[in-house]
Amino acid sequence: MSMEIPIVRNVLEANDRIAEELKKTFREKGILCLNLMSSPGAGKTSLLERTLMDLKDEFRMAVVEGDLQTDNDARRVAATGAQAVQVNTEGGCHLDSGMVLDAIRSMDMDGLDILFVENVGNLVCPAEFDVGEDYKVTLLSVTEGDDKPEKYPLMFHLSAVMLLNKVDLLPYVDFSLENATNHAKGLNKDIEVMPISCRNGDGLDAWYEWLRNKRAEKK
Amino acid sequence: MSMEIPIVRNVLEANDRIAEELKKTFREKGILCLNLMSSPGAGKTSLLERTLMDLKDEFRMAVVEGDLQTDNDARRVAATGAQAVQVNTEGGCHLDSGMVLDAIRSMDMDGLDILFVENVGNLVCPAEFDVGEDYKVTLLSVTEGDDKPEKYPLMFHLSAVMLLNKVDLLPYVDFSLENATNHAKGLNKDIEVMPISCRNGDGLDAWYEWLRNKRAEKK
Repeated sequence: MSMEIPIVRNVLEANDRIAEELKKTFREKGILCLNLMSSPGAGKTSLLERTLMDLKDEFRMAVVEGDLQTDNDARRVAATGAQAVQVNTEGGCHLDSGMVLDAIRSMDMDGLDILFVENVGNLVCPAEFDVGEDYKVTLLSVTEGDDKPEKYPLMFHLSAVMLLNKVDLLPYVDFSLENATNHAKGLNKDIEVMPISCRNGDGLDAWYEWLRNKRAEKK
Repeated sequence: MSMEIPIVRNVLEANDRIAEELKKTFREKGILCLNLMSSPGAGKTSLLERTLMDLKDEFRMAVVEGDLQTDNDARRVAATGAQAVQVNTEGGCHLDSGMVLDAIRSMDMDGLDILFVENVGNLVCPAEFDVGEDYKVTLLSVTEGDDKPEKYPLMFHLSAVMLLNKVDLLPYVDFSLENATNHAKGLNKDIEVMPISCRNGDGLDAWYEWLRNKRAEKK
């Protein structure tokens, strides 16, 4: 199946061209764009629910919600009062830049500070598709095991932040924060590692401070 | 990117042709082949470790281990005494039938009763690629949330069994066995749902009984 290779390259090049357009738009408007990725069920939507509520007096935020099907997550996000646009990939395993471009056309971008792109739950394919983001942010739930950065290296290699979610479950699972951190830093020495719990709020202050700093740099 | 569609169709057709060859081989040799799929960290390797140990006096079993990189899982499986062949997809998001065909060429198939194919951790892409299995078996960890069958429908639509793993963590997470079961049965009324814990062994007897029955049908 070596015939696949040039096709894949063309698809990625087309994706990157649109991603560059998106980056230009976000730069001109001073919008911080983050591509949020993880396995299914690691807590991307829960993180957004908390972030959108806790920072709603500081920033104007919006969300592009990627899912294979259903609009459950867009409804959860919209319940916080933030703008949310659902993108259904109809079975596709990742978002691409064209889908995000389509989504933001139906969005009010004026005065927006932060745009979150919640990708399809998948630790593999989304890593390869730039959707115009400033940074990739990967969530890893401690229930998934501390070997995951080593086993899914591209995602962690490319991410600016690894959020270790569900630390409230640490007493009940075998997970070493140190091992996970060492594996991730072995792939990407600059990755910032933040243990958090979207359930009880532990560690979210560090995440909010990171958002404030990165947002300030885009001004 | 509509040019992708005929290419994808050719790839799937080529995959299905090799899968048919594999099915013929497994039929002739009376081997039950199971394609084990889940999100990263849902417990596929832990399930294999327990199954290979607990049934080692009943069946000859072997494993094709799919991973993007590393041979950690093949080493864990081989530690039980079972044959294990590692397939590294070099970043690819699923196993295909050609990879499984290559893997079994280096395997001793004589007298084998059950071949497990542990797919790449991914709830999306592996569903589309038949690897010659008799049945697809999907693990869902209760830490992932009971909405996952609805959000990743193809995988559950095609699976004969949904193993709800990590039920020892039910007291600490929001997960309704009833909701997950109803969502899965809405996609596939015949799916068998088995709550299990690979940590404390709960529910594994039902899984082992299912394996015995399906193995007997292949004789």
